[in-house]
Amino acid sequence: MSLKYIDNARKILCIGRNYAAHIKELNNVQPSEPFFFLKPSSSILRPNSGSVLVPRGTVVHHEIELAIVLNRTLRNLDKNFSDEEALDSIAGYALALDMTARNVQDEAKKKGLPWTIGKGFDTFLPLSRFISKEQIPDPYKVELSFDINGKNKQFDSTNLMLFKINKILSTMSSIMTLEKGDIILTGTPKGVGPIHPGDYLFGKIINDKGQVIEESILDL
Amino acid sequence: MSLKYIDNARKILCIGRNYAAHIKELNNVQPSEPFFFLKPSSSILRPNSGSVLVPRGTVVHHEIELAIVLNRTLRNLDKNFSDEEALDSIAGYALALDMTARNVQDEAKKKGLPWTIGKGFDTFLPLSRFISKEQIPDPYKVELSFDINGKNKQFDSTNLMLFKINKILSTMSSIMTLEKGDIILTGTPKGVGPIHPGDYLFGKIINDKGQVIEESILDL
Ligand SMILES: [Mg+2]
Ligand SMILES: [Mg+2]
Ligand SMILES: [Mg+2]
Repeated sequence: MSLKYIDNARKILCIGRNYAAHIKELNNVQPSEPFFFLKPSSSILRPNSGSVLVPRGTVVHHEIELAIVLNRTLRNLDKNFSDEEALDSIAGYALALDMTARNVQDEAKKKGLPWTIGKGFDTFLPLSRFISKEQIPDPYKVELSFDINGKNKQFDSTNLMLFKINKILSTMSSIMTLEKGDIILTGTPKGVGPIHPGDYLFGKIINDKGQVIEESILDL
Repeated sequence: MSLKYIDNARKILCIGRNYAAHIKELNNVQPSEPFFFLKPSSSILRPNSGSVLVPRGTVVHHEIELAIVLNRTLRNLDKNFSDEEALDSIAGYALALDMTARNVQDEAKKKGLPWTIGKGFDTFLPLSRFISKEQIPDPYKVELSFDINGKNKQFDSTNLMLFKINKILSTMSSIMTLEKGDIILTGTPKGVGPIHPGDYLFGKIINDKGQVIEESILDL
């Protein structure tokens, strides 16, 4: 199982509000430009290395996302950075869960405080093995699927992304240098909700032929 | 010049609102518990390696801070974690500037968005060389000083910190594992304000004998 990409990541960036129906379900405002936040490397949960923790007093939501791994440094890209150039900058992919202590995040949003705590608890970033570009020739032609205890909760195509990867990368790179190995989560589709101790979590990426590219199982 | 600690840092955490007079000057509310945010390693500006950038459309404030570097992993510390144990966990110190695009941060606070962009631009974290514990035997007995063009802007003792280092570490560690080498900024005293292209910036740490322990000069 190829996990070396996890050790090589200097930073992990996550885009917020990149699927319209997810923005609606949380009563959020659609951003005119991509915004993003950081998750610490300490929040990574590797495959087969335990459960997602539900810290005392928190309501933890699942957000299934397609992660991209960069193969080069990107700095100050201009707005014409094309989707083809963006795909050239991708080393590969991963299936990721952007676990979120929703009540902590809601409180932070109300008070105008950073999102770091609600997004950054240990185990809040389950990552799959590395997925090659051969397995995902087109990142907008996969379905993200997430089940709890055998019941489907999230199931949508990545073609619903509001900001495509070239726009995500050009915006991020205009603020901070993106480095080779950085991991970028591209947002979650609708259907987020709480997980509970004892739950059986099952995430999948499916290609346009209906084949499962990658699956992640997490026992809580 | 000892800069190896910069390469060894897995993450950089910054506490917000840790000096009463600084909270007041920005009309912020004093937190009942420490809160914090992450700065990306890409924002680090090493000594003698160029200027702080003032990105187009931003108002960039200086925040001079004492940074600590950890010598061990800290996880789930309890509330009785003592100040002595905290000091034992410190490998050394650095003089840091938590540069902040204040208008971007203000906008994020109003909209309940992450602080990542306003805090994370390239060059927004000038760091000094590593300062040994011999040079700072007591981290609450140093003065932080910051001048612009020969005029003093910030000058206060670290004994004004609202949350001491043991409390900072126990809170942070209860959320995310702190790792050996992590860099933690302990907050800024009053006097923050904008910098402008052409400015000559001068930061200092002074010990209780009035001796300069470390100074950082930045030409903009
Ligand atoms: Mg943040
Ligand atoms: Mg997310
Ligand atoms: Mg600060």
